[in-house]
Amino acid sequence: ERTGAAEAVYAAGKTPEQVVGALRALREAQPGRVALATRCDAACESAVRGAFGDAVLVEAGVCAVGDFPPAEVGPLAVVCAGTSDLPVAREAEFVARANGVEVRLVADVGVAGLHRLLDRVDRLREAACVVVVAGMDGALPSVVAGLVSAPVVAVPTSVGYGAAFGGLAPLLTMLNSCSPGVSVVNIDNGFGAAMAAVRILGVKPGL
Amino acid sequence: ERTGAAEAVYAAGKTPEQVVGALRALREAQPGRVALATRCDAACESAVRGAFGDAVLVEAGVCAVGDFPPAEVGPLAVVCAGTSDLPVAREAEFVARANGVEVRLVADVGVAGLHRLLDRVDRLREAACVVVVAGMDGALPSVVAGLVSAPVVAVPTSVGYGAAFGGLAPLLTMLNSCSPGVSVVNIDNGFGAAMAAVRILGVKPGL
Amino acid sequence: ERTGAAEAVYAAGKTPEQVVGALRALREAQPGRVALATRCDAACESAVRGAFGDAVLVEAGVCAVGDFPPAEVGPLAVVCAGTSDLPVAREAEFVARANGVEVRLVADVGVAGLHRLLDRVDRLREAACVVVVAGMDGALPSVVAGLVSAPVVAVPTSVGYGAAFGGLAPLLTMLNSCSPGVSVVNIDNGFGAAMAAVRILGVKPGL
Amino acid sequence: ERTGAAEAVYAAGKTPEQVVGALRALREAQPGRVALATRCDAACESAVRGAFGDAVLVEAGVCAVGDFPPAEVGPLAVVCAGTSDLPVAREAEFVARANGVEVRLVADVGVAGLHRLLDRVDRLREAACVVVVAGMDGALPSVVAGLVSAPVVAVPTSVGYGAAFGGLAPLLTMLNSCSPGVSVVNIDNGFGAAMAAVRILGVKPGL
Amino acid sequence: ERTGAAEAVYAAGKTPEQVVGALRALREAQPGRVALATRCDAACESAVRGAFGDAVLVEAGVCAVGDFPPAEVGPLAVVCAGTSDLPVAREAEFVARANGVEVRLVADVGVAGLHRLLDRVDRLREAACVVVVAGMDGALPSVVAGLVSAPVVAVPTSVGYGAAFGGLAPLLTMLNSCSPGVSVVNIDNGFGAAMAAVRILGVKPGL
Amino acid sequence: ERTGAAEAVYAAGKTPEQVVGALRALREAQPGRVALATRCDAACESAVRGAFGDAVLVEAGVCAVGDFPPAEVGPLAVVCAGTSDLPVAREAEFVARANGVEVRLVADVGVAGLHRLLDRVDRLREAACVVVVAGMDGALPSVVAGLVSAPVVAVPTSVGYGAAFGGLAPLLTMLNSCSPGVSVVNIDNGFGAAMAAVRILGVKPGL
Amino acid sequence: ERTGAAEAVYAAGKTPEQVVGALRALREAQPGRVALATRCDAACESAVRGAFGDAVLVEAGVCAVGDFPPAEVGPLAVVCAGTSDLPVAREAEFVARANGVEVRLVADVGVAGLHRLLDRVDRLREAACVVVVAGMDGALPSVVAGLVSAPVVAVPTSVGYGAAFGGLAPLLTMLNSCSPGVSVVNIDNGFGAAMAAVRILGVKPGL
Amino acid sequence: ERTGAAEAVYAAGKTPEQVVGALRALREAQPGRVALATRCDAACESAVRGAFGDAVLVEAGVCAVGDFPPAEVGPLAVVCAGTSDLPVAREAEFVARANGVEVRLVADVGVAGLHRLLDRVDRLREAACVVVVAGMDGALPSVVAGLVSAPVVAVPTSVGYGAAFGGLAPLLTMLNSCSPGVSVVNIDNGFGAAMAAVRILGVKPGL
Ligand SMILES: Nc1ncnc2c1ncn2[C@@H]1O[C@H](COP(=O)(O)O)[C@@H](O)[C@H]1O
Ligand SMILES: Nc1ncnc2c1ncn2[C@@H]1O[C@H](COP(=O)(O)O)[C@@H](O)[C@H]1O
Ligand SMILES: Nc1ncnc2c1ncn2[C@@H]1O[C@H](COP(=O)(O)O)[C@@H](O)[C@H]1O
Ligand SMILES: Nc1ncnc2c1ncn2[C@@H]1O[C@H](COP(=O)(O)O)[C@@H](O)[C@H]1O
Ligand SMILES: [Mg+2]
Ligand SMILES: [Mg+2]
Ligand SMILES: [Mg+2]
Ligand SMILES: [Mg+2]
Ligand SMILES: [Mg+2]
Ligand SMILES: [Mg+2]
Ligand SMILES: [Mg+2]
Ligand SMILES: [Mg+2]
Repeated sequence: ERTGAAEAVYAAGKTPEQVVGALRALREAQPGRVALATRCDAACESAVRGAFGDAVLVEAGVCAVGDFPPAEVGPLAVVCAGTSDLPVAREAEFVARANGVEVRLVADVGVAGLHRLLDRVDRLREAACVVVVAGMDGALPSVVAGLVSAPVVAVPTSVGYGAAFGGLAPLLTMLNSCSPGVSVVNIDNGFGAAMAAVRILGVKPGL
Repeated sequence: ERTGAAEAVYAAGKTPEQVVGALRALREAQPGRVALATRCDAACESAVRGAFGDAVLVEAGVCAVGDFPPAEVGPLAVVCAGTSDLPVAREAEFVARANGVEVRLVADVGVAGLHRLLDRVDRLREAACVVVVAGMDGALPSVVAGLVSAPVVAVPTSVGYGAAFGGLAPLLTMLNSCSPGVSVVNIDNGFGAAMAAVRILGVKPGL
Repeated sequence: ERTGAAEAVYAAGKTPEQVVGALRALREAQPGRVALATRCDAACESAVRGAFGDAVLVEAGVCAVGDFPPAEVGPLAVVCAGTSDLPVAREAEFVARANGVEVRLVADVGVAGLHRLLDRVDRLREAACVVVVAGMDGALPSVVAGLVSAPVVAVPTSVGYGAAFGGLAPLLTMLNSCSPGVSVVNIDNGFGAAMAAVRILGVKPGL
Repeated sequence: ERTGAAEAVYAAGKTPEQVVGALRALREAQPGRVALATRCDAACESAVRGAFGDAVLVEAGVCAVGDFPPAEVGPLAVVCAGTSDLPVAREAEFVARANGVEVRLVADVGVAGLHRLLDRVDRLREAACVVVVAGMDGALPSVVAGLVSAPVVAVPTSVGYGAAFGGLAPLLTMLNSCSPGVSVVNIDNGFGAAMAAVRILGVKPGL
Repeated sequence: ERTGAAEAVYAAGKTPEQVVGALRALREAQPGRVALATRCDAACESAVRGAFGDAVLVEAGVCAVGDFPPAEVGPLAVVCAGTSDLPVAREAEFVARANGVEVRLVADVGVAGLHRLLDRVDRLREAACVVVVAGMDGALPSVVAGLVSAPVVAVPTSVGYGAAFGGLAPLLTMLNSCSPGVSVVNIDNGFGAAMAAVRILGVKPGL
Repeated sequence: ERTGAAEAVYAAGKTPEQVVGALRALREAQPGRVALATRCDAACESAVRGAFGDAVLVEAGVCAVGDFPPAEVGPLAVVCAGTSDLPVAREAEFVARANGVEVRLVADVGVAGLHRLLDRVDRLREAACVVVVAGMDGALPSVVAGLVSAPVVAVPTSVGYGAAFGGLAPLLTMLNSCSPGVSVVNIDNGFGAAMAAVRILGVKPGL
Repeated sequence: ERTGAAEAVYAAGKTPEQVVGALRALREAQPGRVALATRCDAACESAVRGAFGDAVLVEAGVCAVGDFPPAEVGPLAVVCAGTSDLPVAREAEFVARANGVEVRLVADVGVAGLHRLLDRVDRLREAACVVVVAGMDGALPSVVAGLVSAPVVAVPTSVGYGAAFGGLAPLLTMLNSCSPGVSVVNIDNGFGAAMAAVRILGVKPGL
Repeated sequence: ERTGAAEAVYAAGKTPEQVVGALRALREAQPGRVALATRCDAACESAVRGAFGDAVLVEAGVCAVGDFPPAEVGPLAVVCAGTSDLPVAREAEFVARANGVEVRLVADVGVAGLHRLLDRVDRLREAACVVVVAGMDGALPSVVAGLVSAPVVAVPTSVGYGAAFGGLAPLLTMLNSCSPGVSVVNIDNGFGAAMAAVRILGVKPGL
C-alpha cells in the first residue's frame, strides 16, 4: 500500500449511488483512513450524508468520511484574491485538513492592490508550503513566489471570460512564472494542490 | 490626411530595395514627416543608410528617416524586466521619440523581485502614459496598472519557451489583467505600443 | 490609494449577497466614489436595488451605486455595427458615464456598408477617444483607426458562431490591425475598454 | 476526364527530378493542356527550365509548361494591400492567366487608407470575379465584398507576426466576414484561389 | 446600392422584436427585395409570422419576407451525406431560392458509400454550381470537386463530437482539399454558401 | 518478454554514437531479433553502416540491423496519393518488412481522381490489413475504409501548408472518419502504423 | 456490398422518428444484419423500442435491432480504470457483441494503482485484441501495450476537467504513446473502437 | 533578500557578453551564492569560462559560478525514460546539485517496459523528492506517483513529433495525472523542477 494519504473519488459524472458505493469500498479497504469524494453536487452530498451520517463532513463540494487525523504538519497557506476563487481555495483547504495539515486561508490579496498582499508577507513567510489560487491573469503565484522561499503550488481557476478560455490563460501564466520553483496543477484542481502539499509536508529531507 | 504621426514600413519579408523604395515614397508624399521602417535586418539597415545618408537614424531594427519633431508631450515610461525584453522595449522607445514623445526607459524591474519595482513607483507615477513590455508570465502590466492611474499599454513578447507558445502566454495574461483599464497590442509589437501612446499623448480631453 | 476611478465587482459566479456585500464594502471604504458591479443577472440586480434603493442605476448588466461625477472629459465615441454588439457597447458607455465621461454611441455603422460609416466620419473625428466594439470579423477598428487620429480601444465580442470561436476571431483580427496604434481588451470586455478610456481621458501630456 | 483546367504539381518537399518527372507525365497524358508546378524553389525552377526550355514560363514560384490558352473570360481582379502580400497575389494572377483568364492586379489598396480603395471602386466593379489577398487583420475582403456584387474569393496570407499565428488570424477574419458571400481558401493559397476563379468564370448559369 | 441580393438579419442573440424591427426596416428601404432573418428560434419565427402574415415563408430557421424572384439561374446542387447535415443544407437551399436560384438537393451521398455518390455524378455535372455540406471528416467536397468542373463551395458543419471540435475538423479538411478550386465558408454557414452561389451564378464572364 | 516484434530506437535528437550504442544493446539483449533505428539522418545512417556493416539495411531513414524474418503474414497494403507522402509510406513498408510482413505499396491513388483508386479496389480487397497515408485533407482513409472490410490504420502526414498546421488537419479528419473502424496513429508515424499492422497480422482470433 | 458488419445510425441531433426511419431502412436493405443506433437518449430509445419491440436490445445509449450473430471470434478485452469511463467502455463492448465478438470487460485497473493491472496481465494476454478506454491523463494504453502483443485500440474519453479540454489531453497522450503499435479513435468513440476490433478480428493473415 | 537559493540568468536570446555581465552582477551582489546561467550555447559557455576560469562548472547547457554548498538535503531522484530526455534531466540534476541537493539520476525506466521501473521501486522510495522527466505521452509521472508517497514534480519535454506539438501532449498528460499530488513545470524546464525541489527539500513542516 502506497501512502497514508486520504483516497478520493471523483464524483463528477457519477451517480450518487456510485459515489456512496465507492466511498464504502474505500472505507472497508482502509477503515483508518479518511475517504473523500470531490466535485459533489447537492444530490450526491445528501446521498453521502444519508449513508454515513455523523461520520461525514462536507465543504466546498467535498464529502469527507472518517475522523480527520490531528494536524501535525504545516502551516499551509492557501492564498487567493477574493470571492470568485474561493470555492477552489476552500476545496484545497478542506482536503489538506482531512490529511492532518494545519491550514491558513489568506483570501483578500490580489496583484491589482499590492499593499494588501505586502501587509501579509510576514504571515505568508511563516508557512511551510503555499498554495496560490488565481484566475484571470493568474499573476499572483509569480508575485508570492518572489516573496517566500517555501514551495509554491499554483492552481489556475476557470474564473474569467473571453480570452481566459476556461482557465487556459492563468494556467499558461503559471507555467511560465518568472519566479523560479513554482509548480502547477490542473485548472480548478484544489484537490490536487492539497495532495501535492500533503506530499511536500510529509518530506523528511535529511540525508 | 489622417494624422501627423510618422508612417511606417514593415520591412520583414521585403527586399532592401523594396524598403528603400517605400521609404522614398513616404518622404516624397510628406516631406515634413518622419518615415520609419521596422523589423529591418542588417542588409536592410545598410541599404537604408546608403540611400538616405545622414538623414537616417537606426535603433532596435528601426530605421527612421527625417528630423524628429521636438519632444513636447510625455513623459512616456517604457517598462520591462530586463535584458531579454529590451529589444521590444527599445523599439517602442525609439518609435515614440521619432514622434516627438519624451521617453523614460525603466528596464530593471520584474515581479519576481517586487522591491525594485516599488523603488520606482514615484518615477512611474510621473509618467503621462506607461508601456509595459513583458514575456514569460506577462504579469508585470497587472502589477504596474495597480500602482499608477495613467493609461497602461501592455506588450507581450515572444521571450520564453515551451508553454510560452511564442508569446501566447503573456498575451493571454495581459488580456485578462485583473487591473482594470490595461489594453494590449500584438506580441513583440513595440511599434504598435508606441503608436498607441502617440495617439494617447495627443489627446485633448476637455469638453 | 491609486486612482479616483470607480471600483468594480465582477458579479459573474458570485451570489447576490456576495455582490451586495462587496458593493457595501467599496462604498464604506470610499463613500465619494461610485461602486460598480458588472455582469449582474436579474437576481443580482434586484438584490442590489433592494439594498441601495435610489442610489443605484442599472444598465447593460451593470449596477452603479453612488452619484456619478459631472461629465468633464470627452467626448468618448463608442462605435459598433448594430444590435448584436450593443450590450457590450452599452456596458462600455455606462461604465464610462459612471466615471464622468461624456459618451456618444454610434451604433449603426459596419464595414459591409461603408457609406454609413463614412457619413459619420466628422462626428468620429470630434471624439477625444474611440472605443470600437465588433464581433465576427472584427474589421471595424482597423477601418476606424484609419479615419481618426484619436486613441482607438478595440473590444472583440463573442457574437458569431463556428470559426468565430467565441470571439477569438475578432480578437486576433484586432491584435493584428494594419492601422497602427489600435490597442485591445478582452472579449466582451466593455468594462475594461471604458476603464482604459477613463485612464486615457485623464491624461495631462504636457511636459 | 474531369475538367479542361491546368493540372498542377505541388513542388514543396519534392526533388527537382520528381517535379520534372511529374510535369512530363502531365504533358504526355494531356499534351494540349498547361502543366503547372507551384511552390518551386530556385533549384526546381532551373531543373524545369532545363527540361522544357522555351515551353516554360516562370513567375512567383510557379513553373508553367505549355501554351497558355487565349484569354476569353474575365476580367478577374486580384486585390491586395501592398508589397508583402504580392507573392501570393502574383501566384494567383499567373495561375489564372495560365488558364485563359484576363487578370487585373490591384495592389496598392488597404483598409487603413480607405480612400485609395474607394478610388478604385469602379475598376473593381468591372471585374467578373475578385480574389482578395490579405494578411495581418485580413479585413480587406469584408470591405471589398461590401462594394462589389461579383464573387469574392479571399486568400489569407502568412504575412504578420505574433498573434497572426502564421495566417490563422486573417483566415478566421475571412471565414467570419460580415459581408455575405465571401468564400475562403487556405493560407497563402494563391493557386487555389485562381482555380476557384477558373471554375467560377467557366459558369454558364442559364437554366 | 451594392447588389440586388436579399438582405439578411442574423437573429441569434436578438429579441423577436429586434428581428421584426430589422426586417421592417429592410422592407421599407427596399420594398422590392426579399428580407431574410437567419438562425430564428420558434419565438422569433412566430413573431415574424405575426408581423408579416402571408408575406413570410419559414424554413430551416430562416424567415423570408417578400415575393421570391422567379428562378432564372442555376441549377445549384446542394449536396450532403444525410440527415445530420440536412438543416445546414436546407438553410443554403432556402436562401438560394429566395434569391431566384433553382436548387437541387442531393442528400443521400457520403464518402463511406461511394457508389451512391457515383450514381449521381451525371446529375451533379448538370449543376452550374455545387454547395457541399459535410460534418465529421468533411471529406465530401474533395471527392465531389474531383468529379465536377463547376465551382464548389464547401460548408463544414458542427455535426460530430470529440475531435470534431465543433466543426474545426471538417473546416480544416476543406481548406486543405487536395482537389483544386474548392472554397470554404464558416462552420454551419448555409446562408453564406448560398450567398456565394448567388454571387457566382450572377457572373457574366465574357470579356 | 512482451513480443517478438522488432525493437526500435528513435534517432531524432540523438547523436550517431548514441544510436549505434542503443542498437548494439538491443542486438546483444536479443540477438535473434531485428533492431531498428527510425528518423536517422545521413550522419546517423553512415555511423550505423560503419558499426554493423553488411548486417544493416537502410531505407526511408530507417536502419535495420539483423536478418529479416521470412514473410509469413500479409499482404499488407500501404496506400498513399503520391510523391509527397511517399517517405512516410516507405517507412511503414520497410518496418513491416523487417517484421516478416509481405507488403504491397499502392502509391498513385488520391481522392481527387477517384477512378485510379477504383481501378485498384480488387487489389486493395486482397489485403489482410491496409495502412493509408495521407496529408492535406486526409480524406483517403475514409474512402478506402468504405471499400474494404480489412482493418484500416490511418497515418496523417505533415505534407501541406497553412491551415494544414503541420498535419493537424489530416489528423482530425482521420479521427472523425465517417467510415466506421478506422484507427489512427501520430502524424508522419509510418513506424507506428507498421507496428500496429504487425500486431494485427499476428492475431489469432478463433475462440 | 462492402462488409458483413452491423450498420449504425448516429442518433445525436436526429429526432426519434428519424432514427426509427433510418433503422427501418437498414433492416429492409439487409434483413440478416443487425442495425444499430448509437448516442440515443431516452426518448430515442423508447421510440426504437416502440417500433421494433422484442427485436431491440438497448445498452449504453446503443439500440441494436436484429439477432446478434453467434460469438465466433475473440476474446476482445475492453479495459478501463473505473466508473467514469464505463459508459464508453460499455458502448464498445455492446457494439462488439452485436457483431459476434466475445468480450471481456476489465474495468477496475488504472495506472495509479499498478498492482491491480499487473494482477490481470495473464487475462489480458489471452485476448486476441484489446480496447483500452481512458480519460484524464490517458496513460493506460501505453502501459497495457507494453504488457501484451495483441493489437491495442485506444479510446480517449472526455472524462476530466480543466486542461483535459474535453478529451484532448488523453487523445494526444495516446497518439504519442511510447509503446509501439497503439492506434487511436475519436474521443468517447466506443463504437469506433469496437468496429476497428471487428475489422481486426476478421483478419485472415496467412499468405 | 528572499532566499538562499542560487540565482539564475536565462541565457537564451542574450549575447555572451550580456550573460557574463549578468553573472558578474549576481556574484557581486551575493558573493557567497552560486550564480547560474541556463540554456547556454557553446559561445556563451566559452565566454563564461573565459571570464570566471576555475570558478565555473558547466553541464547540460548550465554554467555555474561559485562553490557548491555541501549536499545536506535529499536524496532527490531525477527519473526519465532514456537518452532523449536526458538533457533536461541533467539540467535538473546539475541545478539541484548547485543548490546543495544530493541527486540520483534514474535514467533507464519507461512505461513501455514496466519491469525496469518496478525493479527500481525501492530506490525511488528512498528519495525525499522525485523529479520525473518525460516526453511523448508523458505517462511516466502518473505511474511513478502511484508508487511513491514523496512529492513528484513532473517535467514535460519537447521530445516527440507530430501531435506531441512541442511538448503540449506530455504537458497536458501531466496536468491531468490520475495519481493525486503531481505538480508540473514548463516544457523542458529542468531548471524550474530543480528549483521546486530545492524549495521542497528546504521545508520544515513541524508545527
Ligand atoms: N477533484 C479531483 N481532481 C482530480 N482528480 C481527482 C479529483 N478527485 C479525485 N481525483 C482522483 O481521481 C481518481 C478517482 O477516480 P474514480 O475512480 O473515477 O473516482 C483518483 O485517482 C483520485 O485521486
Ligand atoms: N466585466 C469585468 N471584466 C473584467 N474585469 C472586471 C469586470 N468587472 C470587474 N472586474 C475587475 O475584477 C476585479 C474584481 O474582482 P472581484 O474582487 O472578484 O469582484 C476588479 O479588479 C475589477 O476591476
Ligand atoms: N457513435 C458514433 N461515432 C462515430 N460515428 C458513428 C457513430 N455512430 C454511427 N456512426 C457512423 O455515422 C454514420 C451514420 O451517420 P448518419 O447517416 O448521420 O446516421 C455511419 O457511417 C456510422 O458508421
Ligand atoms: N531555464 C530557465 N527556465 C525558466 N526560467 C529561467 C531559466 N533560467 C533562468 N530563469 C529565470 O529567468 C529569470 C532571469 O531572467 P533574466 O533576468 O532575463 O536573465 C530569473 O527569474 C530566473 O530564475
Ligand atoms: Mg488573479
Ligand atoms: Mg515578465
Ligand atoms: Mg463586425
Ligand atoms: Mg491586410
Ligand atoms: Mg461527412
Ligand atoms: Mg491526401
Ligand atoms: Mg485514465
Ligand atoms: Mg516518455
